[in-house]
Amino acid sequence: MTDLLHALSEILDPAGILTGAATEGYMIDGRRRYHGRNLAVLRPRNTEEVAAIVKLCAAHGVPMVPQGGNTSLCGAATPDESGHAVVIALERMNRVLDVDVGNNTLTAEAGAIIADLQNAARDADRLFAADWGAKGSARVGGALGTNAGGLNVLRYGNMRDLTLGLEVVLADGRIWNGLRGLRKDNTGYDLKQLFIAGEGSLGIITRATFKLFPLPTAQATALVPVANPQGAVDLLRGLQHRLGDRVTSFELLSRRCWQLLAQYCPELPKPFAELPEWSVLAEVSDGGTDDDLLARFGEALLDEGADDAVIATSRSDAADFWALREAVPEAQKRKGVSIKQDIGVPTSAFPQFLQEAEAALQAALPGADIIAFGHLGDGNLHYNVFLDDVTNAAYQHEPRINEVVYEIVQRHGGTISAEHGIGQLKRDLLPQYRSEVELDLMRTIKHALDPHNLMNPGKLLAG
Amino acid sequence: MTDLLHALSEILDPAGILTGAATEGYMIDGRRRYHGRNLAVLRPRNTEEVAAIVKLCAAHGVPMVPQGGNTSLCGAATPDESGHAVVIALERMNRVLDVDVGNNTLTAEAGAIIADLQNAARDADRLFAADWGAKGSARVGGALGTNAGGLNVLRYGNMRDLTLGLEVVLADGRIWNGLRGLRKDNTGYDLKQLFIAGEGSLGIITRATFKLFPLPTAQATALVPVANPQGAVDLLRGLQHRLGDRVTSFELLSRRCWQLLAQYCPELPKPFAELPEWSVLAEVSDGGTDDDLLARFGEALLDEGADDAVIATSRSDAADFWALREAVPEAQKRKGVSIKQDIGVPTSAFPQFLQEAEAALQAALPGADIIAFGHLGDGNLHYNVFLDDVTNAAYQHEPRINEVVYEIVQRHGGTISAEHGIGQLKRDLLPQYRSEVELDLMRTIKHALDPHNLMNPGKLLAG
Repeated sequence: MTDLLHALSEILDPAGILTGAATEGYMIDGRRRYHGRNLAVLRPRNTEEVAAIVKLCAAHGVPMVPQGGNTSLCGAATPDESGHAVVIALERMNRVLDVDVGNNTLTAEAGAIIADLQNAARDADRLFAADWGAKGSARVGGALGTNAGGLNVLRYGNMRDLTLGLEVVLADGRIWNGLRGLRKDNTGYDLKQLFIAGEGSLGIITRATFKLFPLPTAQATALVPVANPQGAVDLLRGLQHRLGDRVTSFELLSRRCWQLLAQYCPELPKPFAELPEWSVLAEVSDGGTDDDLLARFGEALLDEGADDAVIATSRSDAADFWALREAVPEAQKRKGVSIKQDIGVPTSAFPQFLQEAEAALQAALPGADIIAFGHLGDGNLHYNVFLDDVTNAAYQHEPRINEVVYEIVQRHGGTISAEHGIGQLKRDLLPQYRSEVELDLMRTIKHALDPHNLMNPGKLLAG
Repeated sequence: MTDLLHALSEILDPAGILTGAATEGYMIDGRRRYHGRNLAVLRPRNTEEVAAIVKLCAAHGVPMVPQGGNTSLCGAATPDESGHAVVIALERMNRVLDVDVGNNTLTAEAGAIIADLQNAARDADRLFAADWGAKGSARVGGALGTNAGGLNVLRYGNMRDLTLGLEVVLADGRIWNGLRGLRKDNTGYDLKQLFIAGEGSLGIITRATFKLFPLPTAQATALVPVANPQGAVDLLRGLQHRLGDRVTSFELLSRRCWQLLAQYCPELPKPFAELPEWSVLAEVSDGGTDDDLLARFGEALLDEGADDAVIATSRSDAADFWALREAVPEAQKRKGVSIKQDIGVPTSAFPQFLQEAEAALQAALPGADIIAFGHLGDGNLHYNVFLDDVTNAAYQHEPRINEVVYEIVQRHGGTISAEHGIGQLKRDLLPQYRSEVELDLMRTIKHALDPHNLMNPGKLLAG
């Protein structure tokens, strides 16, 4: 180990190797559910340093855990408690390298912060479309490793859809340069797809090239009461029929979300005089002016029978609506511990899923308090359950709640992780919900690309 | 072999096994450059039959060549001349299985014809967005195996972007059911991505679930003269700035295309009084009415300084414009043999690429007659070269032309196959234009998933 640290000190500058107390912040995950230990935290400055570190660790049989903004919700970036692993923190590789307006692409290092990509694109009159709550701290590599989604997936897709090229340091320290800015390239297997959502288990992403889009100049936003989830699905398809891809976000909120906001975030505005059973935060965007778009949006809402929609009359109103939506997780946190689920089913199956899941949960855990909200348009809801006890003791019910909800998810052809990935949190659940053939294919690929199981071991797939 | 054929006859009905003269049509590729031989052509009726065939062939060490509509432009679906392989033709698995309007998805068998998917979606007031010349004969499996592109990629992406789930028979005959209709699913490696553009070399796709889109009700189409390719790039970005994703197609045509059409397809209309040096066929689509969209499109063209645009005033005019664009390959065929290239570079690099490639080709082969056209918005042009001799003898110059053009493509970070794939045609070229690391990764994956090299061997990667 002294050998290894000495050799590392010849690769990295003094600020590039942290040990002991200085590593504490890297050892706890975003939800504070995992607390790891480490041999060292390494902070390379460029791809060549990453490659040299990986080569060295591979030679010493030392496991490597890549870490970006440390915002994983599944413990994917936290090492285990053995203390045998190094964390490779990409935070110093944080540059936006290039914006090509003629090609509508942006290239950045893996440690660049998502908000910085948004800003660099905006400065060039373009849109970098990925957007979610943690954009100010989440970094490119982690966002790619978990194929992050967020608020604009309906219109622009998730990180996978936005990615044209990657540079990756492989498990043996070789650099694969697949950093192409091409929208069409059929020259064999699309290797980058393996590293996206690969949770660092096949290699370490060091750079990426992304699609940019025309920057919308107009937006219009509304909170729309709907009778029930089927009403929300119908409204979505109706708006898409009338407005096409201008429908950018379509977020479902149950009545409980509004009650929670009123109780725990009383400082926020209250857009509804009477709380609707279900509601939707819908946003459309386009070129042209807000006024023109607002007129079209208002008309479309009326044509869809949504005459009680609360339409934002200014950007500041719209920002308030979004602040409400984004405060739901915060309100939950203030209430206490809930069992959180990040499930997906086909959008068309959501009405039935919600009905069945509520009935099954109430039967299994009477009084369960369900907070359902999220990206209905993408077939993805955050489905969280509070019990009477809102301390850490609530976690004892997690396995039972998972079992009840995931059985229904599975029956509707859904997923136990639509957005947040597998990490440590769902690693041992995955085999129940994916076929043996599928798991075997994953293990085959893992073994082929990382035969010594040194890349983020214990995440996604069991050892 | 008699053993194998006997065993196959217990799996398949009599119409499911063709031998001898009945197999002739399956043995020649679309461009008539390859002529293969076979042990038999097998025509399974369902996934279980495919699985049983594969298991049996794997046990006998017999190579398998999947074939859909036999429209490959690179010989990817034609067996070699050894006669040792079976062709597995998916043509009887040709059903559209489901259209889910609430989920905006369509599921079809691998042998379903692309136009049938378009029609099934349209009947449900939805758009299946993949579209290209061979849509009436190309089938789902082949389109996926080569990640086909076509005329709508700019707006809707290629087959990869349209695909949510796959069912695949693996090299050992196991069935992987990844037929999920989810827009978000982060449960490990996205295995389907390996089979898309995998050219049948890792398994045989049997079913697929695709995204559908709102069916546009309005379209507007124009032929727009531009001074040069940079003018075309600027026009594209300008129109996208003003009209966003309404810009659905953006096809570049050089003056030589129009001359060729006038000479070899004189029956077609002539939209330009004077032939422009370069021109663009641009189409926008949206909800609402043609008249409204036409007004916006016309305004946007004027704002971009395109006051000499020829705007289609009716759907029939628009169809004429498209007939012209789609007749360019036919006009070329009538002229004779050309050396065809399907290259891509970043859209921003096209102006320079076109200048450099023309200069280099004229230097290498004086009098070379270059026909450049295609999907500028996707960074993909068909770049074809006629020499004085338009018989098969022209192919003797193919290596030299490739060498000249691909060197420039490579320098601009491009691809030697943007759309048509590798197949047999470019298999031995690929190693010159992709890094050893990249090829090694591909071989590693091929070996991991098809250790006995029985799935479409000799395509994409050398034995």
